[in-house]
Amino acid sequence: MGSLPTDVLENNFACSANPLDADEFRRQGHLVIDFIADYYQNIEKLPVRSQVEPGYLKKRLPESAPYNPEPIELILKDVQNDIMPGITHWQSPNYFAYFPSSGSIAGFLGDMLSTGFNVVGFNWMSSPAATELESIVMDWLGKMLKLPESFLFSGNGGGVLQGTTCEAILCTLIAARDRMLNKIGRENIHKLVVYGSDQTHCAMQKAAQIAGIHPKNFHAIPTSKSNAFALPVESLRSAIIFDIQAGLVPLFLCATVGTTSSTAVDPVGPLCDIAKDYNIWVHVDAAYAGSACICPEFRHFIDGVENADSFSLNAHKWFFTTLDCCCLWVKDPSSLVKALSTNPEYLKNKATESKQVVDYKDWQIALSRRFRALKLWLVLRSYGVANLRNFLRNHVRMAKHFEGLVAMDKRFEIVVPRTFAMVCFRMLPPTSMVEMQGDGVKSAVHANELNQKLLESVNASGRIYMTHGVIGGVYMIRFAVGATLTEERHVKIAWKVVQEHADALGL
Amino acid sequence: MGSLPTDVLENNFACSANPLDADEFRRQGHLVIDFIADYYQNIEKLPVRSQVEPGYLKKRLPESAPYNPEPIELILKDVQNDIMPGITHWQSPNYFAYFPSSGSIAGFLGDMLSTGFNVVGFNWMSSPAATELESIVMDWLGKMLKLPESFLFSGNGGGVLQGTTCEAILCTLIAARDRMLNKIGRENIHKLVVYGSDQTHCAMQKAAQIAGIHPKNFHAIPTSKSNAFALPVESLRSAIIFDIQAGLVPLFLCATVGTTSSTAVDPVGPLCDIAKDYNIWVHVDAAYAGSACICPEFRHFIDGVENADSFSLNAHKWFFTTLDCCCLWVKDPSSLVKALSTNPEYLKNKATESKQVVDYKDWQIALSRRFRALKLWLVLRSYGVANLRNFLRNHVRMAKHFEGLVAMDKRFEIVVPRTFAMVCFRMLPPTSMVEMQGDGVKSAVHANELNQKLLESVNASGRIYMTHGVIGGVYMIRFAVGATLTEERHVKIAWKVVQEHADALGL
Repeated sequence: MGSLPTDVLENNFACSANPLDADEFRRQGHLVIDFIADYYQNIEKLPVRSQVEPGYLKKRLPESAPYNPEPIELILKDVQNDIMPGITHWQSPNYFAYFPSSGSIAGFLGDMLSTGFNVVGFNWMSSPAATELESIVMDWLGKMLKLPESFLFSGNGGGVLQGTTCEAILCTLIAARDRMLNKIGRENIHKLVVYGSDQTHCAMQKAAQIAGIHPKNFHAIPTSKSNAFALPVESLRSAIIFDIQAGLVPLFLCATVGTTSSTAVDPVGPLCDIAKDYNIWVHVDAAYAGSACICPEFRHFIDGVENADSFSLNAHKWFFTTLDCCCLWVKDPSSLVKALSTNPEYLKNKATESKQVVDYKDWQIALSRRFRALKLWLVLRSYGVANLRNFLRNHVRMAKHFEGLVAMDKRFEIVVPRTFAMVCFRMLPPTSMVEMQGDGVKSAVHANELNQKLLESVNASGRIYMTHGVIGGVYMIRFAVGATLTEERHVKIAWKVVQEHADALGL
Repeated sequence: MGSLPTDVLENNFACSANPLDADEFRRQGHLVIDFIADYYQNIEKLPVRSQVEPGYLKKRLPESAPYNPEPIELILKDVQNDIMPGITHWQSPNYFAYFPSSGSIAGFLGDMLSTGFNVVGFNWMSSPAATELESIVMDWLGKMLKLPESFLFSGNGGGVLQGTTCEAILCTLIAARDRMLNKIGRENIHKLVVYGSDQTHCAMQKAAQIAGIHPKNFHAIPTSKSNAFALPVESLRSAIIFDIQAGLVPLFLCATVGTTSSTAVDPVGPLCDIAKDYNIWVHVDAAYAGSACICPEFRHFIDGVENADSFSLNAHKWFFTTLDCCCLWVKDPSSLVKALSTNPEYLKNKATESKQVVDYKDWQIALSRRFRALKLWLVLRSYGVANLRNFLRNHVRMAKHFEGLVAMDKRFEIVVPRTFAMVCFRMLPPTSMVEMQGDGVKSAVHANELNQKLLESVNASGRIYMTHGVIGGVYMIRFAVGATLTEERHVKIAWKVVQEHADALGL
């Protein structure tokens, strides 16, 4: 090509349209809507768990970014050919892994609008609707959950949309930490103790680590099958008393409603009672199961929350709102603000000074924030309370159905009782084998390996996707119903798939 | 209505379609694409800064969520009537406030695809394409910036997409903190010192606060007009020596390329040299100006980055990628992983155990993460390096033009030299007034009040939106070019608007 100066070359290849040209936006936007609609139309046929090997994509893509622009049609083709094989289809009706990431049209559209406005809602001033809609929908959802008034803005508490539970726990922990350190002195940070159970989500441990809590001072109280893997109230009291005697300072308790391993439910009320005696901040993590509490028949699982300090659930898990959308309510927003506020000159404004507005930047880790409230608002309005309850009940009903199918097959057992829409089950080793071995430990190991094998065999087929947990030493398969497209027929087929693979293992 | 049981009522109102029904998705998706395309078509006519008063939305929306579903057409009408007035139009071509939040069609579509797949990409296993594409585009962008190989995966470093700079700084600080505390003992956390300048973004102070650094130990080195508000190298050395003598432990330095107040550039190379002598982690925060460094003529601003430990820029600021998308590169990913990793049973998998994959959950605060790489990939491919450079240069050219216009009007002055696409200017008080007062302090206060008045008057008109900064005691108006739709004509009109309002103030 010779030696044309870079600038000339670049000008030659410049595309004429503005990158936000409305007509081009319309054209390309419609293309992508159809692409995604087609994806949902055909999603059922795709292998649920991606079947690629590590490094697959590097082999398919160029070493560096293109110098010249490429058309959207080509890019979409590459999405289809190169990206799609590496996608695990969380939206597939045959997806029963981890916890659901339940998308919906309303959630999707809300995210589109938010991306379209693309405002940076750090404070009220930067786009008042972003802040005000968030406060309003958080009060709406709080009322649907029958949270006590003290968690709502109308009762001097308030809600905020965080990205994830990790952030929600970290923010509340920092608030609790600084409230305590202001009393006992900064130099005592190494004395602060955080409590959870051995079933508490690792987000708690990570938050404690980030907040500078001494790693030795994250106390995970052991649980057991005898109390369904819930945090034992008396063990907590003993641990607290022991720690105080050792010169430590109890700070924070994370109680879980619907643990990740088995959807166990910690006794919120009694735990709060103990915590109160020792001035411990209680956060209730209902990331998964919180959504179900909009149904009157499930609400009792969070009874006692009126004595907690903060409560969170992930609307992006089981509430039809796309990732990420963690709803956090606190009784004392000022403790968050004290710990997390900044006041740089360039953000000073009359509204903030008037103290009539919420500046959400002081309720979270990051300064910049997306307009997440739109998607939650669209979900609440598009479906309404009645349908949302029905959707959740339907998932529970399907899980119950699956539970029944497992119970009817003598080769299997339900490991822990089902509470919501997740079934924890496992295959039992053939009696002959247990007898032959006559060794409890060996037999347990064998059962675990057997189920691991069964799970891998099922997932490798691509027909359904489930994941595992280990509880009380027992390896179990978790079957979580909650993908939005799942219908009863998918659950029935899923069980057949499990049975077929069990058959193939010769058991 | 009498006493129909709740369940019956709920079933009566249930909508028949699945909330992710493909046909309905298609219909509603096209509606919203048109809604947003129309928005961009007409955005120029809207008042840029929202003109609502605190509490405006509460008056318009119901007290609680609807019981029954509502159609999308009605919801969009409410977006138009109720939400829109509370939006400050960051995408307006007349938006010159804060820093830009430069959207693009490609960024928007990438976000749509990500929302459509709605995968939770905590680790490689959960959706391999999400992780692999992220690593690939981070290497692509790293090469475009001519980052040293040691920051790329190909050189045993690596990049990750965080939400915001706040998170990027927090993660690197935690990594540095734990590396140091492992050496000197956890109980010495109160001795750790973090350095920045008085121009460093408040994200640094907030991160230090969250990480449990003693508030007294965030040392902001004073800057001055004489060195263009850059961090003075020798002051840093003196501060470090002083702190060591006082028994403290220097830990972390945040150097900024393009400060928020005035786009000042800290001397990265010399600062890294000093930091090296004392084993201090250097993070280079190029949130705004980093993007410009893909142009050869701007690259020198990050010279010396090869001696830093981490580097970040916000693609959602001035790189056509929708919020949120902060690109962070580190030389030693293992330090992040050591500080931030968790290993819960339910996420254990063969790929992780093989150590052939990246699990990004261990590079960030949260466990769950969106598939953000798609939007950055689409931006890089849709525009190509050549156009991206041209877009940025065009913004710089427009800012330069505005600077020239300011310079020609004797009533105004440029407060600090323009470096990128932001002009910091102010109105001078009329000479007569300065003479009349004969008091330097009073006169300075008067000048500040005058510019505050001018800015408020301009912004209240809704025709353009700018924000302010205070530097060296001087209140100045910041004019940041970077909204994607801005063309030269908008800049010209913007200046006329400023002049008209100055005229109206009778000056």
